[in-house]
Amino acid sequence: MKELIGRSKELLEKAGVPARVAGQAAETLVSADARNIHSHGVIRLARYIDCIQSGGIRPDAELKIIDEGPAYLRASANGGLGIPASGEVVERLIAKAAAMPLAAASVNHSDHYGAAGYYAMKCADAGLIGFSMSNTCPLIAVTGAAAAGIGNNPFAYAAPAGKYRAVLFDICMSVVASGKIMLAAADGHPIPEGWILDKHGKPTTDPKEIYDGAIMLPLGGHKGYGLALMVEMLAGVLAGAGTLSGVHSWNSVPGRDADTGHFFMTINPAFFGGLANFTARMEKVIEELTSAPRLENVKKIYYPGELEFISEQRARTEGIDLPEGSAAELERAAKLVG
Amino acid sequence: MKELIGRSKELLEKAGVPARVAGQAAETLVSADARNIHSHGVIRLARYIDCIQSGGIRPDAELKIIDEGPAYLRASANGGLGIPASGEVVERLIAKAAAMPLAAASVNHSDHYGAAGYYAMKCADAGLIGFSMSNTCPLIAVTGAAAAGIGNNPFAYAAPAGKYRAVLFDICMSVVASGKIMLAAADGHPIPEGWILDKHGKPTTDPKEIYDGAIMLPLGGHKGYGLALMVEMLAGVLAGAGTLSGVHSWNSVPGRDADTGHFFMTINPAFFGGLANFTARMEKVIEELTSAPRLENVKKIYYPGELEFISEQRARTEGIDLPEGSAAELERAAKLVG
Repeated sequence: MKELIGRSKELLEKAGVPARVAGQAAETLVSADARNIHSHGVIRLARYIDCIQSGGIRPDAELKIIDEGPAYLRASANGGLGIPASGEVVERLIAKAAAMPLAAASVNHSDHYGAAGYYAMKCADAGLIGFSMSNTCPLIAVTGAAAAGIGNNPFAYAAPAGKYRAVLFDICMSVVASGKIMLAAADGHPIPEGWILDKHGKPTTDPKEIYDGAIMLPLGGHKGYGLALMVEMLAGVLAGAGTLSGVHSWNSVPGRDADTGHFFMTINPAFFGGLANFTARMEKVIEELTSAPRLENVKKIYYPGELEFISEQRARTEGIDLPEGSAAELERAAKLVG
Repeated sequence: MKELIGRSKELLEKAGVPARVAGQAAETLVSADARNIHSHGVIRLARYIDCIQSGGIRPDAELKIIDEGPAYLRASANGGLGIPASGEVVERLIAKAAAMPLAAASVNHSDHYGAAGYYAMKCADAGLIGFSMSNTCPLIAVTGAAAAGIGNNPFAYAAPAGKYRAVLFDICMSVVASGKIMLAAADGHPIPEGWILDKHGKPTTDPKEIYDGAIMLPLGGHKGYGLALMVEMLAGVLAGAGTLSGVHSWNSVPGRDADTGHFFMTINPAFFGGLANFTARMEKVIEELTSAPRLENVKKIYYPGELEFISEQRARTEGIDLPEGSAAELERAAKLVG
């Protein structure tokens, strides 16, 4: 893990990211790989560097505090990378949250912030219930629409859970991630109706459409629509960031920024019966959930985050086994920065 | 509407509910009918009265404040009806929220609190972003389980939206509501795999199983599991209420209470760029979402809550047209209280 963090940090520095934040950004990406969320790990490095080199992301942007109070913070990433801005904001939020039953922080003028769950876990590790969300450029057709109108708007929460460490939940609002559709395409299997529309807005079961402008559909129909809008409302509208088509994720156009927005929130169990009481009760809930009678062929019921923590533990002792795609993108990143 | 509120209030009073809270409870139920959410309207009156008459709900319980601060409130419904307790708590929360960027309130020792969205809308009408959630007795099998292990845990949010009044989103965590499965049973149509398990925990497409102990499945698979757990964590664990099998919804057993928990939260846009700015931006988001290209046969794209507001407007001018089931339950309620 350390080696991969070091290598990623070096690539970011060579792309113009100041040493101070390059290390934090590298650690955030590698932490996703360690949790087996490779889609949000170092595979993204080359793409961040693409954006920097095209002038779409300012590698040395400084976080700007727009406004703050004891329980809130509004910041701008100033057209810089989303990860260092979010890392700094969440650190400041956690400092405020110790004295407050609830606290929140928003970021605008940002870009892709990595895995949403990373920031929620920072809160959980500090004894807080943490929420993390971000809007994205439009990727999902809302109920009744034949075109992408809203982002797949990631949403995560995490909370301390005593001997189970934490619960950690991190989703986007489409039925499935595009990676799953790409796998079906590779295997030549049709996908169920209701996962995507083709680029003309027609329902399709052909996974290959994902490579030809397919539009994602929201999980649970109108339920996913409403959840995506909740994220848009907090991370976009309330944060003063771009909304819907005003968000340019992975911006590569100089003279503007992605204007992605993020929203982070904490609830402090110290004000609601105490942390020890909270974690003891969370342990009891996890034990009851995971000891339910199981479906045939199911060996174990997991609590949200458990698989990620198992991967992380293994990564710490055995190192990270990067998928081919990640390794290839690391090489591409190295070429980009010479 | 007024007549139906009056009649419902009278029935509750005859069942022993003090006049002061009976009116508020009646208004809450009728408001759901007005929004065309008949499943959470006066159809529930007879069931509340069943619980009262069996000794499972104390009709005259007084709300108890356990603890409070400028930004939070913890209360107990003291084994009483969930609706008046929640109504009073949300009123107190809104008063706190005016001076706070974020605020929250919890309730324990409660029972069914009606439509989750009602309380969120109270916040929106006060210029706040409002969240409302409640746990319930286990109804959903979590990912991998063959038995109901967690509630269908309703979750709602609402926010002011200027000329569009508000966005209002109110869901439970199962793929579909049981009412939809009952309709399929009546029509003799099979239901898609993935909606329910039969009482033995086997997947089934037979909607009639809903009358024979079928177990609901969470929306979006593990995504619905995690969302149900989020509600359980806040409305159950943090609120100090019963959790999972410790919740006895619609309690009819004297000597205990349902110990359902609720959690309410507000975010005040005044601290995040101002309310006028927020609602102007929400209007713009709604306009962009609802003007997207439409699927064939789709006449209009709605924003969350729009259909409910249209129904409510019609109910105000034309009155409420109660479904047969609601009318029958009202008659049953009248018989129960003599």
